[in-house]
Amino acid sequence: MALDKTWFSEPCAEFGSAFSLKIKEKLHDETSEYQRIEVYDTVYFGKLMVIDGYVMLTDKDNFIYHEMMSHPALYTHSNPEKVVIVGGGDCGTLQEVLRHENVKKAWQVEIDERVTRVAEEHFPDLCLANNDPRANFFFGDGIKWIEEAAEASIDVIIVDSTDPIGPAEGLFAVPFYRSCLKALKPNGIIVQQSESPLYHMEIIKGMYTAMREAGFSNMATLQFPQCVYPSGWWSATLAGKDSSVAQFRNFAAKNKPFQSKFYSEEMHQSALTLPPYVKEALEGM
Amino acid sequence: MALDKTWFSEPCAEFGSAFSLKIKEKLHDETSEYQRIEVYDTVYFGKLMVIDGYVMLTDKDNFIYHEMMSHPALYTHSNPEKVVIVGGGDCGTLQEVLRHENVKKAWQVEIDERVTRVAEEHFPDLCLANNDPRANFFFGDGIKWIEEAAEASIDVIIVDSTDPIGPAEGLFAVPFYRSCLKALKPNGIIVQQSESPLYHMEIIKGMYTAMREAGFSNMATLQFPQCVYPSGWWSATLAGKDSSVAQFRNFAAKNKPFQSKFYSEEMHQSALTLPPYVKEALEGM
Repeated sequence: MALDKTWFSEPCAEFGSAFSLKIKEKLHDETSEYQRIEVYDTVYFGKLMVIDGYVMLTDKDNFIYHEMMSHPALYTHSNPEKVVIVGGGDCGTLQEVLRHENVKKAWQVEIDERVTRVAEEHFPDLCLANNDPRANFFFGDGIKWIEEAAEASIDVIIVDSTDPIGPAEGLFAVPFYRSCLKALKPNGIIVQQSESPLYHMEIIKGMYTAMREAGFSNMATLQFPQCVYPSGWWSATLAGKDSSVAQFRNFAAKNKPFQSKFYSEEMHQSALTLPPYVKEALEGM
Repeated sequence: MALDKTWFSEPCAEFGSAFSLKIKEKLHDETSEYQRIEVYDTVYFGKLMVIDGYVMLTDKDNFIYHEMMSHPALYTHSNPEKVVIVGGGDCGTLQEVLRHENVKKAWQVEIDERVTRVAEEHFPDLCLANNDPRANFFFGDGIKWIEEAAEASIDVIIVDSTDPIGPAEGLFAVPFYRSCLKALKPNGIIVQQSESPLYHMEIIKGMYTAMREAGFSNMATLQFPQCVYPSGWWSATLAGKDSSVAQFRNFAAKNKPFQSKFYSEEMHQSALTLPPYVKEALEGM
Protein backbone atom coordinates (compact mmCIF):
# COMPACT_ATOMS: atom_id res chain seq x y z
CA MET A 1 0.00 0.00 0.00
CA ALA A 2 1.05 3.60 -0.45
CA LEU A 3 1.64 5.83 2.55
CA ASP A 4 -0.45 8.99 2.57
CA LYS A 5 0.46 12.41 3.92
CA THR A 6 -0.08 11.34 7.52
CA TRP A 7 3.31 9.60 7.42
CA PHE A 8 6.79 11.05 7.64
CA SER A 9 9.15 9.03 5.43
CA GLU A 10 12.91 9.00 5.24
CA PRO A 11 13.99 7.25 2.07
CA CYS A 12 17.52 5.94 1.94
CA ALA A 13 18.02 6.50 -1.77
CA GLU A 14 21.31 4.63 -2.03
CA PHE A 15 19.85 1.40 -0.66
CA GLY A 16 16.28 1.71 -1.86
CA SER A 17 14.70 1.42 1.58
CA ALA A 18 12.66 3.82 3.66
CA PHE A 19 11.49 4.13 7.23
CA SER A 20 8.27 5.94 8.04
CA LEU A 21 6.42 7.06 11.14
CA LYS A 22 2.77 7.94 11.35
CA ILE A 23 2.37 11.55 12.37
CA LYS A 24 -0.23 13.25 14.51
CA GLU A 25 0.99 16.77 13.85
CA LYS A 26 3.99 18.90 13.05
CA LEU A 27 5.10 20.78 16.15
CA HIS A 28 8.07 22.72 14.89
CA ASP A 29 9.70 23.71 11.60
CA GLU A 30 12.57 26.13 11.25
CA THR A 31 15.54 26.67 9.05
CA SER A 32 18.50 27.53 11.21
CA GLU A 33 21.78 28.95 10.00
CA TYR A 34 22.87 25.39 9.22
CA GLN A 35 19.89 23.19 8.50
CA ARG A 36 16.15 22.60 8.59
CA ILE A 37 14.94 21.33 11.97
CA GLU A 38 11.49 19.76 12.26
CA VAL A 39 9.70 18.17 15.21
CA TYR A 40 6.65 15.95 14.80
CA ASP A 41 4.33 14.28 17.24
CA THR A 42 3.92 10.63 16.21
CA VAL A 43 1.25 8.12 17.17
CA TYR A 44 3.54 5.63 18.92
CA PHE A 45 7.14 6.90 18.95
CA GLY A 46 6.39 10.08 20.90
CA LYS A 47 8.16 13.10 19.47
CA LEU A 48 10.39 12.85 16.42
CA MET A 49 13.21 15.24 15.49
CA VAL A 50 14.17 15.50 11.83
CA ILE A 51 17.15 17.41 10.44
CA ASP A 52 17.29 18.12 6.71
CA GLY A 53 14.83 15.27 6.15
CA TYR A 54 16.81 12.71 8.19
CA VAL A 55 15.39 11.15 11.35
CA MET A 56 17.57 12.16 14.29
CA LEU A 57 15.70 10.65 17.22
CA THR A 58 12.38 9.75 18.75
CA ASP A 59 11.22 9.54 22.35
CA LYS A 60 10.56 5.82 21.93
CA ASP A 61 13.95 4.45 20.98
CA ASN A 62 16.66 7.09 21.56
CA PHE A 63 17.71 5.35 24.79
CA ILE A 64 19.52 2.66 22.80
CA TYR A 65 21.59 5.10 20.79
CA HIS A 66 22.43 7.45 23.64
CA GLU A 67 23.38 4.65 26.04
CA MET A 68 25.52 2.93 23.41
CA MET A 69 27.29 6.14 22.39
CA SER A 70 28.34 6.85 25.96
CA HIS A 71 28.61 3.94 28.40
CA PRO A 72 30.79 1.55 26.36
CA ALA A 73 33.37 4.29 25.78
CA LEU A 74 33.26 5.50 29.37
CA TYR A 75 33.66 1.97 30.75
CA THR A 76 36.48 1.33 28.28
CA HIS A 77 38.54 4.30 29.42
CA SER A 78 40.24 3.63 32.75
CA ASN A 79 39.24 6.96 34.30
CA PRO A 80 37.21 9.26 32.06
CA GLU A 81 37.44 12.65 33.74
CA LYS A 82 37.17 14.97 30.75
CA VAL A 83 34.75 14.03 28.00
CA VAL A 84 33.99 15.98 24.84
CA ILE A 85 30.94 15.30 22.69
CA VAL A 86 31.24 16.57 19.13
CA GLY A 87 27.71 17.05 17.84
CA GLY A 88 25.10 15.53 20.12
CA GLY A 89 23.01 18.71 20.11
CA ASP A 90 19.95 16.93 21.50
CA CYS A 91 21.84 16.57 24.83
CA GLY A 92 20.91 12.88 25.21
CA THR A 93 24.52 11.69 25.06
CA LEU A 94 25.64 14.41 27.44
CA GLN A 95 23.04 13.28 29.97
CA GLU A 96 24.30 9.68 29.82
CA VAL A 97 27.94 10.82 30.13
CA LEU A 98 27.11 12.78 33.26
CA ARG A 99 25.76 9.67 34.96
CA HIS A 100 29.41 8.64 35.39
CA GLU A 101 30.89 9.81 38.66
CA ASN A 102 34.42 9.88 37.25
CA VAL A 103 33.45 12.64 34.85
CA LYS A 104 34.64 16.00 36.14
CA LYS A 105 33.99 18.02 33.01
CA ALA A 106 31.92 17.31 29.92
CA TRP A 107 31.76 19.53 26.85
CA GLN A 108 29.06 19.40 24.23
CA VAL A 109 30.44 20.99 21.08
CA GLU A 110 27.52 21.34 18.69
CA ILE A 111 27.60 23.45 15.57
CA ASP A 112 23.93 24.44 15.69
CA GLU A 113 22.67 25.97 18.91
CA ARG A 114 19.10 25.74 17.58
CA VAL A 115 19.20 21.93 17.80
CA THR A 116 19.85 22.21 21.53
CA ARG A 117 17.20 24.87 22.04
CA VAL A 118 14.64 22.79 20.15
CA ALA A 119 15.62 19.72 22.21
CA GLU A 120 15.18 21.70 25.43
CA GLU A 121 11.66 22.57 24.33
CA HIS A 122 10.54 19.26 22.82
CA PHE A 123 12.78 16.61 24.40
CA PRO A 124 13.10 17.89 27.98
CA ASP A 125 13.79 14.33 29.23
CA LEU A 126 17.10 14.40 27.36
CA CYS A 127 18.11 17.74 28.82
CA LEU A 128 17.73 16.99 32.52
CA ALA A 129 21.48 17.20 33.09
CA ASN A 130 22.03 20.45 31.18
CA ASN A 131 22.34 22.37 34.43
CA ASP A 132 24.80 19.93 35.94
CA PRO A 133 27.80 22.07 37.01
CA ARG A 134 30.08 19.67 35.10
CA ALA A 135 28.25 20.37 31.81
CA ASN A 136 29.74 22.87 29.38
CA PHE A 137 28.35 23.97 26.05
CA PHE A 138 30.07 25.39 23.01
CA PHE A 139 28.13 26.16 19.87
CA GLY A 140 30.36 26.23 16.85
CA ASP A 141 32.61 24.15 14.63
CA GLY A 142 33.61 20.90 16.35
CA ILE A 143 36.47 20.22 13.97
CA LYS A 144 38.06 23.58 14.80
CA TRP A 145 37.34 23.18 18.51
CA ILE A 146 39.17 19.84 18.64
CA GLU A 147 41.99 21.24 16.48
CA GLU A 148 42.49 24.05 18.95
CA ALA A 149 42.07 21.97 22.11
CA ALA A 150 45.11 21.80 24.36
CA GLU A 151 47.38 18.86 23.58
CA ALA A 152 46.73 15.78 25.70
CA SER A 153 43.83 17.37 27.52
CA ILE A 154 40.84 15.05 26.86
CA ASP A 155 40.09 11.50 28.02
CA VAL A 156 37.18 10.58 25.75
CA ILE A 157 35.91 12.16 22.53
CA ILE A 158 32.41 11.09 21.48
CA VAL A 159 31.53 11.93 17.89
CA ASP A 160 27.75 11.99 17.85
CA SER A 161 27.17 13.38 14.41
CA THR A 162 24.94 13.08 11.37
CA ASP A 163 25.92 10.92 8.38
CA PRO A 164 29.28 11.41 6.65
CA ILE A 165 27.78 13.59 3.95
CA GLY A 166 27.41 17.36 4.10
CA PRO A 167 28.44 19.18 7.30
CA ALA A 168 29.60 16.02 9.10
CA GLU A 169 31.87 14.76 6.31
CA GLY A 170 34.99 16.26 7.88
CA LEU A 171 34.35 14.26 11.06
CA PHE A 172 35.13 11.04 9.20
CA ALA A 173 38.45 12.22 7.74
CA VAL A 174 42.13 11.88 8.62
CA PRO A 175 42.78 15.53 9.60
CA PHE A 176 40.01 15.41 12.22
CA TYR A 177 41.24 12.11 13.61
CA ARG A 178 44.75 13.58 13.81
CA SER A 179 43.42 16.50 15.85
CA CYS A 180 41.58 14.03 18.09
CA LEU A 181 44.72 12.01 18.65
CA LYS A 182 46.64 15.11 19.59
CA ALA A 183 43.89 16.37 21.92
CA LEU A 184 43.58 13.03 23.71
CA LYS A 185 45.61 12.26 26.82
CA PRO A 186 47.66 9.04 26.84
CA ASN A 187 45.18 6.14 26.92
CA GLY A 188 42.51 8.47 25.57
CA ILE A 189 39.83 7.06 23.30
CA ILE A 190 37.38 8.18 20.67
CA VAL A 191 33.99 6.68 19.86
CA GLN A 192 32.04 7.63 16.77
CA GLN A 193 28.70 6.60 15.34
CA SER A 194 29.58 4.46 12.33
CA GLU A 195 26.38 3.78 10.40
CA SER A 196 24.76 0.44 9.53
CA PRO A 197 26.62 -2.90 9.47
CA LEU A 198 24.12 -4.04 6.83
CA TYR A 199 24.45 -1.04 4.50
CA HIS A 200 27.68 0.74 5.25
CA MET A 201 30.59 -1.67 5.68
CA GLU A 202 32.56 0.49 3.25
CA ILE A 203 32.12 3.51 5.52
CA ILE A 204 33.19 1.50 8.57
CA LYS A 205 36.23 0.19 6.70
CA GLY A 206 37.02 3.73 5.56
CA MET A 207 36.90 4.90 9.18
CA TYR A 208 39.33 2.16 10.26
CA THR A 209 41.71 3.15 7.49
CA ALA A 210 41.49 6.86 8.29
CA MET A 211 41.83 6.30 12.04
CA ARG A 212 44.90 4.14 11.51
CA GLU A 213 46.39 6.67 9.11
CA ALA A 214 45.88 9.35 11.74
CA GLY A 215 47.81 7.27 14.28
CA PHE A 216 45.17 5.34 16.22
CA SER A 217 46.33 1.79 16.71
CA ASN A 218 43.34 0.00 18.24
CA MET A 219 39.82 -0.10 16.86
CA ALA A 220 36.67 -1.99 17.79
CA THR A 221 33.11 -1.72 16.56
CA LEU A 222 29.94 -2.03 18.62
CA GLN A 223 26.68 -3.10 16.95
CA PHE A 224 23.19 -2.52 18.28
CA PRO A 225 19.61 -2.20 17.05
CA GLN A 226 18.36 1.28 16.18
CA CYS A 227 14.86 1.13 14.81
CA VAL A 228 14.66 4.60 13.27
CA TYR A 229 17.98 4.59 11.40
CA PRO A 230 18.44 3.01 7.96
CA SER A 231 18.29 -0.81 8.15
CA GLY A 232 17.31 -0.67 11.84
CA TRP A 233 20.81 -1.81 12.83
CA TRP A 234 23.54 0.60 13.79
CA SER A 235 27.14 0.73 14.99
CA ALA A 236 29.68 2.83 16.82
CA THR A 237 33.42 2.51 16.36
CA LEU A 238 35.91 2.94 19.18
CA ALA A 239 39.59 3.76 18.71
CA GLY A 240 42.32 3.97 21.32
CA LYS A 241 45.27 6.36 21.28
CA ASP A 242 47.56 3.71 22.64
CA SER A 243 45.43 1.16 24.44
CA SER A 244 42.98 -1.55 23.47
CA VAL A 245 39.29 -0.69 23.21
CA ALA A 246 38.13 -4.30 23.04
CA GLN A 247 38.42 -4.69 26.82
CA PHE A 248 36.57 -2.63 29.35
CA ARG A 249 36.08 -2.19 33.09
CA ASN A 250 33.68 -5.12 33.49
CA PHE A 251 33.46 -4.89 37.25
CA ALA A 252 32.61 -1.19 37.21
CA ALA A 253 30.09 -1.71 34.40
CA LYS A 254 28.46 -4.55 36.31
CA ASN A 255 28.20 -2.41 39.42
CA LYS A 256 27.34 0.90 37.82
CA PRO A 257 25.51 3.25 40.17
CA PHE A 258 22.79 4.21 37.67
CA GLN A 259 19.96 2.54 35.78
CA SER A 260 19.98 1.93 32.05
CA LYS A 261 17.48 0.29 29.75
CA PHE A 262 19.73 -1.11 27.03
CA TYR A 263 23.30 -0.95 28.30
CA SER A 264 24.71 -3.44 30.75
CA GLU A 265 28.07 -5.08 31.23
CA GLU A 266 26.74 -8.11 29.34
CA MET A 267 25.26 -6.02 26.53
CA HIS A 268 28.59 -4.19 26.18
CA GLN A 269 30.34 -7.51 25.59
CA SER A 270 27.55 -8.61 23.30
CA ALA A 271 27.70 -5.40 21.25
CA LEU A 272 31.46 -5.92 20.74
CA THR A 273 30.70 -9.32 19.21
CA LEU A 274 30.45 -9.07 15.45
CA PRO A 275 28.88 -11.44 12.91
CA PRO A 276 31.38 -13.39 10.82
CA TYR A 277 30.80 -11.32 7.68
CA VAL A 278 31.51 -8.07 9.57
CA LYS A 279 34.55 -9.54 11.32
CA GLU A 280 35.94 -10.72 8.01
CA ALA A 281 35.44 -7.32 6.41
CA LEU A 282 37.41 -5.68 9.22
CA GLU A 283 40.06 -8.37 9.60
CA GLY A 284 43.58 -7.05 9.65
CA MET A 285 42.41 -3.43 9.47
CA MET B 1 8.71 13.26 1.53
CA ALA B 2 5.95 10.95 0.33
CA LEU B 3 6.79 7.63 -1.26
CA ASP B 4 5.38 7.16 -4.74
CA LYS B 5 4.15 3.98 -6.41
CA THR B 6 7.69 2.75 -7.07
CA TRP B 7 7.90 1.72 -3.39
CA PHE B 8 6.43 -1.30 -1.65
CA SER B 9 5.42 -0.32 1.90
CA GLU B 10 4.45 -2.44 4.87
CA PRO B 11 2.83 -0.27 7.49
CA CYS B 12 2.72 -1.62 11.03
CA ALA B 13 -0.58 -0.01 11.96
CA GLU B 14 -0.39 -0.82 15.67
CA PHE B 15 2.92 0.96 16.13
CA GLY B 16 2.62 3.65 13.49
CA SER B 17 5.77 2.71 11.63
CA ALA B 18 6.38 1.42 8.12
CA PHE B 19 9.22 -0.15 6.19
CA SER B 20 9.46 0.33 2.44
CA LEU B 21 11.58 -1.00 -0.38
CA LYS B 22 12.04 0.60 -3.78
CA ILE B 23 10.77 -1.70 -6.46
CA LYS B 24 11.97 -2.33 -9.98
CA GLU B 25 9.05 -4.56 -10.98
CA LYS B 26 6.51 -7.03 -9.74
CA LEU B 27 7.52 -10.54 -10.76
CA HIS B 28 4.72 -12.62 -9.32
CA ASP B 29 1.25 -12.16 -7.87
CA GLU B 30 -1.12 -14.99 -7.02
CA THR B 31 -3.80 -15.75 -4.52
CA SER B 32 -3.33 -19.29 -3.29
CA GLU B 33 -5.85 -21.29 -1.31
CA TYR B 34 -4.54 -19.56 1.81
CA GLN B 35 -3.10 -16.18 1.00
CA ARG B 36 -1.84 -13.67 -1.53
CA ILE B 37 1.78 -14.26 -2.52
CA GLU B 38 3.73 -11.53 -4.30
CA VAL B 39 7.33 -11.35 -5.44
CA TYR B 40 9.03 -8.09 -6.39
CA ASP B 41 12.42 -7.24 -7.76
CA THR B 42 13.90 -4.42 -5.66
CA VAL B 43 16.74 -2.05 -6.43
CA TYR B 44 19.08 -3.13 -3.62
CA PHE B 45 17.54 -5.98 -1.63
CA GLY B 46 17.27 -8.41 -4.55
CA LYS B 47 13.99 -10.23 -4.65
CA LEU B 48 11.29 -9.61 -2.06
CA MET B 49 8.51 -12.05 -1.08
CA VAL B 50 5.35 -10.59 0.39
CA ILE B 51 2.45 -12.57 1.89
CA ASP B 52 -0.86 -10.82 2.47
CA GLY B 53 0.95 -7.50 2.40
CA TYR B 54 3.62 -8.52 4.93
CA VAL B 55 7.30 -8.70 4.02
CA MET B 56 8.47 -12.29 4.38
CA LEU B 57 12.03 -12.10 3.15
CA THR B 58 14.50 -10.53 0.76
CA ASP B 59 17.65 -11.85 -0.88
CA LYS B 60 19.70 -9.21 0.92
CA ASP B 61 19.04 -9.96 4.57
CA ASN B 62 17.29 -13.35 4.95
CA PHE B 63 20.58 -14.95 6.01
CA ILE B 64 20.27 -13.42 9.47
CA TYR B 65 16.79 -14.78 10.09
CA HIS B 66 17.40 -18.24 8.66
CA GLU B 67 20.69 -18.72 10.47
CA MET B 68 19.24 -17.55 13.78
CA MET B 69 16.13 -19.72 13.48
CA SER B 70 18.21 -22.86 13.00
CA HIS B 71 21.78 -22.89 14.35
CA PRO B 72 21.16 -21.72 17.93
CA ALA B 73 18.49 -24.38 18.44
CA LEU B 74 20.55 -27.10 16.78
CA TYR B 75 23.62 -26.27 18.84
CA THR B 76 21.50 -26.15 21.99
CA HIS B 77 20.13 -29.65 21.53
CA SER B 78 22.71 -32.29 22.43
CA ASN B 79 22.11 -34.39 19.32
CA PRO B 80 19.47 -33.07 16.93
CA GLU B 81 18.68 -36.02 14.69
CA LYS B 82 15.06 -35.34 13.82
CA VAL B 83 14.04 -31.76 13.19
CA VAL B 84 10.62 -30.46 12.20
CA ILE B 85 10.05 -27.00 10.79
CA VAL B 86 6.50 -25.75 11.12
CA GLY B 87 5.99 -23.14 8.41
CA GLY B 88 9.24 -22.10 6.76
CA GLY B 89 7.80 -22.54 3.27
CA ASP B 90 10.62 -20.57 1.65
CA CYS B 91 12.97 -23.48 2.52
CA GLY B 92 15.68 -21.18 3.90
CA THR B 93 15.48 -22.60 7.41
CA LEU B 94 15.43 -26.17 6.08
CA GLN B 95 18.62 -25.49 4.17
CA GLU B 96 20.38 -24.23 7.28
CA VAL B 97 19.12 -27.20 9.33
CA LEU B 98 20.54 -29.62 6.79
CA ARG B 99 24.01 -28.14 7.18
CA HIS B 100 24.15 -30.04 10.50
CA GLU B 101 25.63 -33.49 10.16
CA ASN B 102 23.71 -34.81 13.17
CA VAL B 103 20.44 -34.30 11.36
CA LYS B 104 19.13 -37.57 9.97
CA LYS B 105 15.68 -36.41 9.02
CA ALA B 106 14.19 -32.95 8.59
CA TRP B 107 10.54 -32.22 7.90
CA GLN B 108 9.21 -28.98 6.52
CA VAL B 109 5.52 -28.80 7.40
CA GLU B 110 4.13 -25.80 5.52
CA ILE B 111 0.45 -25.13 5.08
CA ASP B 112 0.77 -23.54 1.65
CA GLU B 113 2.61 -25.52 -1.01
CA ARG B 114 2.50 -22.48 -3.28
CA VAL B 115 4.94 -20.61 -1.01
CA THR B 116 7.50 -23.35 -1.56
CA ARG B 117 6.88 -23.49 -5.31
CA VAL B 118 7.25 -19.72 -5.58
CA ALA B 119 10.45 -19.89 -3.49
CA GLU B 120 11.84 -22.59 -5.79
CA GLU B 121 11.27 -20.29 -8.74
CA HIS B 122 12.34 -16.95 -7.27
CA PHE B 123 14.63 -17.82 -4.36
CA PRO B 124 16.56 -20.80 -5.73
CA ASP B 125 19.49 -20.06 -3.40
CA LEU B 126 17.28 -20.97 -0.44
CA CYS B 127 16.17 -24.24 -2.00
CA LEU B 128 19.55 -25.81 -2.74
CA ALA B 129 19.00 -28.51 -0.11
CA ASN B 130 15.48 -29.45 -1.17
CA ASN B 131 16.76 -32.59 -2.85
CA ASP B 132 18.83 -33.66 0.14
CA PRO B 133 17.70 -37.22 0.91
CA ARG B 134 17.14 -36.18 4.54
CA ALA B 135 14.61 -33.50 3.51
CA ASN B 136 10.91 -34.30 3.77
CA PHE B 137 8.01 -32.08 2.83
CA PHE B 138 4.43 -32.07 4.04
CA PHE B 139 2.01 -29.45 2.84
CA GLY B 140 -0.86 -29.04 5.24
CA ASP B 141 -1.82 -27.96 8.73
CA GLY B 142 1.22 -27.85 11.02
CA ILE B 143 -0.83 -27.77 14.20
CA LYS B 144 -2.57 -31.01 13.24
CA TRP B 145 0.69 -32.57 12.03
CA ILE B 146 2.39 -31.96 15.37
CA GLU B 147 -0.73 -33.12 17.25
CA GLU B 148 -0.65 -36.41 15.35
CA ALA B 149 3.12 -36.89 15.50
CA ALA B 150 4.25 -39.96 17.40
CA GLU B 151 4.92 -39.28 21.07
CA ALA B 152 8.55 -38.51 21.89
CA SER B 153 9.64 -38.70 18.27
CA ILE B 154 11.19 -35.27 17.53
CA ASP B 155 14.38 -33.60 18.77
CA VAL B 156 13.84 -30.02 17.63
CA ILE B 157 10.70 -28.20 16.49
CA ILE B 158 11.31 -24.90 14.70
CA VAL B 159 8.25 -22.70 14.39
CA ASP B 160 9.03 -20.43 11.46
CA SER B 161 5.67 -18.79 11.02
CA THR B 162 4.02 -15.49 10.20
CA ASP B 163 2.79 -13.15 12.96
CA PRO B 164 0.43 -14.39 15.68
CA ILE B 165 -2.61 -13.05 13.89
CA GLY B 166 -4.68 -14.94 11.33
CA PRO B 167 -3.56 -18.42 10.27
CA ALA B 168 -0.54 -18.52 12.59
CA GLU B 169 -2.42 -17.54 15.76
CA GLY B 170 -2.81 -21.16 16.88
CA LEU B 171 0.97 -21.59 16.81
CA PHE B 172 1.30 -19.21 19.78
CA ALA B 173 -1.26 -20.98 21.98
CA VAL B 174 -1.20 -23.53 24.80
CA PRO B 175 -2.80 -26.47 22.88
CA PHE B 176 -0.10 -26.29 20.19
CA TYR B 177 2.68 -26.08 22.77
CA ARG B 178 1.16 -29.12 24.55
CA SER B 179 1.28 -31.07 21.29
CA CYS B 180 4.89 -29.98 20.79
CA LEU B 181 5.85 -31.09 24.30
CA LYS B 182 4.28 -34.50 23.69
CA ALA B 183 5.92 -34.89 20.27
CA LEU B 184 9.36 -33.98 21.59
CA LYS B 185 11.77 -36.61 22.86
CA PRO B 186 13.26 -36.14 26.33
CA ASN B 187 15.60 -33.13 26.13
CA GLY B 188 13.77 -31.99 23.02
CA ILE B 189 13.47 -28.28 22.35
CA ILE B 190 11.33 -25.85 20.44
CA VAL B 191 12.36 -22.53 18.91
CA GLN B 192 9.88 -20.03 17.60
CA GLN B 193 10.13 -16.61 15.97
CA SER B 194 8.90 -14.23 18.64
CA GLU B 195 8.54 -10.79 17.06
CA SER B 196 10.23 -7.52 18.02
CA PRO B 197 11.77 -6.80 21.44
CA LEU B 198 10.99 -3.13 20.84
CA TYR B 199 7.34 -3.55 19.86
CA HIS B 200 6.13 -6.89 21.11
CA MET B 201 7.25 -7.60 24.67
CA GLU B 202 3.64 -8.49 25.48
CA ILE B 203 3.68 -11.20 22.80
CA ILE B 204 6.98 -12.58 24.09
CA LYS B 205 5.65 -12.58 27.66
CA GLY B 206 2.48 -14.28 26.44
CA MET B 207 4.58 -16.99 24.79
CA TYR B 208 6.51 -17.61 28.01
CA THR B 209 3.25 -17.92 29.93
CA ALA B 210 1.68 -20.25 27.37
CA MET B 211 4.83 -22.39 27.05
CA ARG B 212 5.04 -22.75 30.81
CA GLU B 213 1.34 -23.59 31.05
CA ALA B 214 1.87 -26.28 28.43
CA GLY B 215 4.63 -27.82 30.53
CA PHE B 216 7.87 -26.36 29.19
CA SER B 217 10.12 -25.41 32.06
CA ASN B 218 13.03 -23.58 30.46
CA MET B 219 12.83 -20.62 28.14
CA ALA B 220 15.36 -18.25 26.63
CA THR B 221 15.06 -15.54 24.03
CA LEU B 222 17.54 -14.68 21.28
CA GLN B 223 17.62 -11.18 19.82
CA PHE B 224 19.08 -10.19 16.45
CA PRO B 225 18.74 -7.48 13.81
CA GLN B 226 16.26 -8.06 11.00
CA CYS B 227 16.09 -5.07 8.74
CA VAL B 228 12.87 -5.90 6.89
CA TYR B 229 10.70 -6.78 9.89
CA PRO B 230 8.89 -4.16 12.01
CA SER B 231 11.36 -2.13 14.12
CA GLY B 232 14.33 -3.82 12.40
CA TRP B 233 15.01 -5.90 15.52
CA TRP B 234 13.68 -9.40 15.97
CA SER B 235 13.71 -12.33 18.36
CA ALA B 236 13.29 -16.08 18.62
CA THR B 237 12.30 -17.87 21.80
CA LEU B 238 13.65 -21.28 22.78
CA ALA B 239 11.98 -23.64 25.23
CA GLY B 240 13.25 -26.95 26.59
CA LYS B 241 11.13 -29.96 27.44
CA ASP B 242 13.26 -30.72 30.44
CA SER B 243 16.64 -29.14 29.88
CA SER B 244 18.07 -25.64 29.84
CA VAL B 245 18.19 -23.75 26.56
CA ALA B 246 20.48 -21.00 27.86
CA GLN B 247 23.54 -23.21 27.40
CA PHE B 248 24.68 -24.72 24.14
CA ARG B 249 27.38 -26.88 22.62
CA ASN B 250 29.97 -24.10 22.41
CA PHE B 251 32.79 -26.31 21.21
CA ALA B 252 30.73 -27.76 18.38
CA ALA B 253 29.43 -24.31 17.42
CA LYS B 254 32.97 -22.94 17.39
CA ASN B 255 34.14 -25.78 15.17
CA LYS B 256 31.13 -26.08 12.91
CA PRO B 257 31.93 -27.62 9.55
CA PHE B 258 30.03 -25.04 7.49
CA GLN B 259 30.20 -21.32 6.76
CA SER B 260 27.70 -18.80 8.04
CA LYS B 261 27.48 -15.05 7.64
CA PHE B 262 25.73 -14.03 10.86
CA TYR B 263 25.80 -17.02 13.21
CA SER B 264 28.88 -17.98 15.19
CA GLU B 265 29.46 -19.40 18.62
CA GLU B 266 30.13 -15.85 19.85
CA MET B 267 27.05 -14.43 18.15
CA HIS B 268 24.94 -17.20 19.71
CA GLN B 269 26.07 -16.11 23.16
CA SER B 270 25.61 -12.50 22.21
CA ALA B 271 22.06 -13.10 20.93
CA LEU B 272 21.16 -14.76 24.25
CA THR B 273 22.19 -11.58 26.05
CA LEU B 274 19.22 -9.33 26.61
CA PRO B 275 19.04 -5.62 27.41
CA PRO B 276 18.04 -4.82 31.02
CA TYR B 277 14.52 -3.74 30.09
CA VAL B 278 13.86 -7.03 28.25
CA LYS B 279 15.42 -9.09 31.04
CA GLU B 280 13.27 -7.33 33.60
CA ALA B 281 10.11 -7.90 31.59
CA LEU B 282 10.85 -11.63 31.44
CA GLU B 283 12.16 -11.99 34.99
CA GLY B 284 10.63 -14.87 36.90
CA MET B 285 8.61 -16.00 33.88
